[in-house]
Amino acid sequence: MNVQEIGQKLVELCRAGKNLDALSLYAPDTVSVEAMGTETMPAVMKGVDAIRGKGEWWFANNEVHRSDARGPYPNGERFAVVFDFEFTAKEGPTAGQRVKMEEVALYTVENGKIVREEFFYSMG
Amino acid sequence: MNVQEIGQKLVELCRAGKNLDALSLYAPDTVSVEAMGTETMPAVMKGVDAIRGKGEWWFANNEVHRSDARGPYPNGERFAVVFDFEFTAKEGPTAGQRVKMEEVALYTVENGKIVREEFFYSMG
Repeated sequence: MNVQEIGQKLVELCRAGKNLDALSLYAPDTVSVEAMGTETMPAVMKGVDAIRGKGEWWFANNEVHRSDARGPYPNGERFAVVFDFEFTAKEGPTAGQRVKMEEVALYTVENGKIVREEFFYSMG
Repeated sequence: MNVQEIGQKLVELCRAGKNLDALSLYAPDTVSVEAMGTETMPAVMKGVDAIRGKGEWWFANNEVHRSDARGPYPNGERFAVVFDFEFTAKEGPTAGQRVKMEEVALYTVENGKIVREEFFYSMG
């Protein structure tokens, strides 16, 4: 698949709520870069298994009321996707607070697989 | 100014329709990367003067009905901004067609100035 096709497939899966299925589009040693991290959840993670773990943790710890994905918006070997989320954290310092959030994700493709994902957002 | 402050200033100026004033936030040798280019308007341009020329050309050749900027969404030394445009080209192959478009812009900051801007979008 080319960059556009990978982007379309990813957006389609996320729109259907199958975000973790999109990991089939990733290379095994993909790098994931969040805008911020903690000691137990570092900003930079490597490998599809670590990224799956982060995703499973997030979906288990947040109630998602609404989500949308727009794009893909390509430029060369990269494409951007704009996500809208509305969710409530089940625990932690923001537990019980309903949050509305827009996020930009930037994906880099090499040899037909996503090798890097980077997230841009503001918290609070 | 730090990354967040530069991003906020840029978004503020773009929301006020003062897009070209935001060039005061750029380093003189900034690189601008469009998703696509032509022979007369290459995808990659270097220098604030070239970028100003591209901006002036765009605003002269398109009637802007509506524009919005959301963000900044930071990650390290970069920040993303989501633009919504509604415009009609005055000439060229799409002249007279009203276009609604979402675009992601990614900015890289070094030493308090924007040194790179990259745009992600789909045409048509």
